[in-house]
Amino acid sequence: MDIKSYFEKKSSVVDRALDKLLPKKGKYLSTIHDAMRYSMFAGGKRLRPVLAIAAFEAAGEKGNKILPAACAIEMLHTFSLIHDDLPCMDDDDFRRGKPTSHKTFGEAMAVLAGDALCIRAFEILGRYQNLPLAEEMGKALGTNGMLGGQVVDIESENMKKIDEERLSFIHHHKTEALITASLRIGGLIGKASQKEMALLTRYGQLTGLAFQIVDDVLDIVGTTESLGKDAGSDVENQKATYPRLFGVEKSRAKARQLTDAAKRTLMPLKGRGRVLAAVADFIVERVN
Amino acid sequence: MDIKSYFEKKSSVVDRALDKLLPKKGKYLSTIHDAMRYSMFAGGKRLRPVLAIAAFEAAGEKGNKILPAACAIEMLHTFSLIHDDLPCMDDDDFRRGKPTSHKTFGEAMAVLAGDALCIRAFEILGRYQNLPLAEEMGKALGTNGMLGGQVVDIESENMKKIDEERLSFIHHHKTEALITASLRIGGLIGKASQKEMALLTRYGQLTGLAFQIVDDVLDIVGTTESLGKDAGSDVENQKATYPRLFGVEKSRAKARQLTDAAKRTLMPLKGRGRVLAAVADFIVERVN
Repeated sequence: MDIKSYFEKKSSVVDRALDKLLPKKGKYLSTIHDAMRYSMFAGGKRLRPVLAIAAFEAAGEKGNKILPAACAIEMLHTFSLIHDDLPCMDDDDFRRGKPTSHKTFGEAMAVLAGDALCIRAFEILGRYQNLPLAEEMGKALGTNGMLGGQVVDIESENMKKIDEERLSFIHHHKTEALITASLRIGGLIGKASQKEMALLTRYGQLTGLAFQIVDDVLDIVGTTESLGKDAGSDVENQKATYPRLFGVEKSRAKARQLTDAAKRTLMPLKGRGRVLAAVADFIVERVN
Repeated sequence: MDIKSYFEKKSSVVDRALDKLLPKKGKYLSTIHDAMRYSMFAGGKRLRPVLAIAAFEAAGEKGNKILPAACAIEMLHTFSLIHDDLPCMDDDDFRRGKPTSHKTFGEAMAVLAGDALCIRAFEILGRYQNLPLAEEMGKALGTNGMLGGQVVDIESENMKKIDEERLSFIHHHKTEALITASLRIGGLIGKASQKEMALLTRYGQLTGLAFQIVDDVLDIVGTTESLGKDAGSDVENQKATYPRLFGVEKSRAKARQLTDAAKRTLMPLKGRGRVLAAVADFIVERVN
């Protein structure tokens, strides 16, 4: 399984579908539509839509039925990034080397572009009649999901000591919930059995946590390499992260442990679990 | 039809249902849940959920099936108000005499509380299987609906001259779209016929525009009475509004014309249209 070419292939399919599903220019509305497209095509990895597609295929389905939902998932992820970057939140000027939305379009337009992507995504999920996709996603994104993680992350920023329980709450909610929902939505559209749904959910929980740990490790390693300053000080200044609590090496080992468990979870799928197993390896081995 | 007591009765039913549907306190999450409830119970008129209930009943249905959707509609309205009030948007410190969300909870929490209400609302709409409620609402709220109106409203603020076409775009999108969607959602849940749906839609367009015109008129009249300054200067400083373009008296007449047309639209419903007709009168006669 050449996972790199799988990602390239699927993300270019997602990009084409996104181009069709996002609003074009329109009278009075060029700026907001530009802002939506700017962040959607800012070089994301498309991990979540690719996971949805892989889960859909792991359930034995083929074709384009998954595509609108995969796009909606990426819109929701991007909505969360735009709002996270706002001056009143993480106040980030750059994301993936490009100026963030509010730096380019101003704060008002960034808030509205995020809102618009969120709403558009739910509109698209609502088109899948007879499947509880909006409900599934609502649970994953709300205060008992991603938003709850973001809230606690913000409120933990100035804390001197962050215990493992709080850290685990943030990880579980902020990252894992949307990754698990992506897999579950792929499974639902792919008519996965109850047993397969349980398996996809477990795989999502394990790889979702691994993804966040690797993200935090890369943040430190990347900083060391590019800024040439000691990683140790970074660890101390970090927000609530695994490497801050346990160090880089132990964190890497933990991530590997989690993705190994995720791969074992896939065993009942046999050959159909091949792609998801390769994605698990990709998540822990990636360098950016 | 005593419309005032109808409103009181229905809005207290909505308030009780909202209390059940909004998240309670939760570990780590008190602030965001407080922020959501603070804005939801800040003294709104509950016009949109009452319209949804009235449309549901006009279609011949009774009972509580409409309630979760009615609550979701009010959550979406409140989400839009919280974000509209932000410093980067209209920068309002007070709404209905109470400090706005960002004044009380800070900007980050206000952005997130708005997001959380939007997501929770779509989660609730998604529970109505076999009804395209999320899609209906997505269209009404997105850039071809409410958000589009907000974008053009913001971009028109510093314009010296605003023509009727731009004004009509703002009104149509910013206010009318959500009011019409509230009625349509009531109709859909009430199993309205196609003919009834068309009629509810038309009624929504007419009363939605009337509502916005009366809002703008009251803004001026209210300012004159409470601040004791000349209404004329206010008209000049106003954002794009009907009274700014046509004056207060002509605007009042226009609103009355629209609600009269809305009432005529209801005629095929006979007795079942009684409440909606009274709401139309209420909209044009209200003083706050």
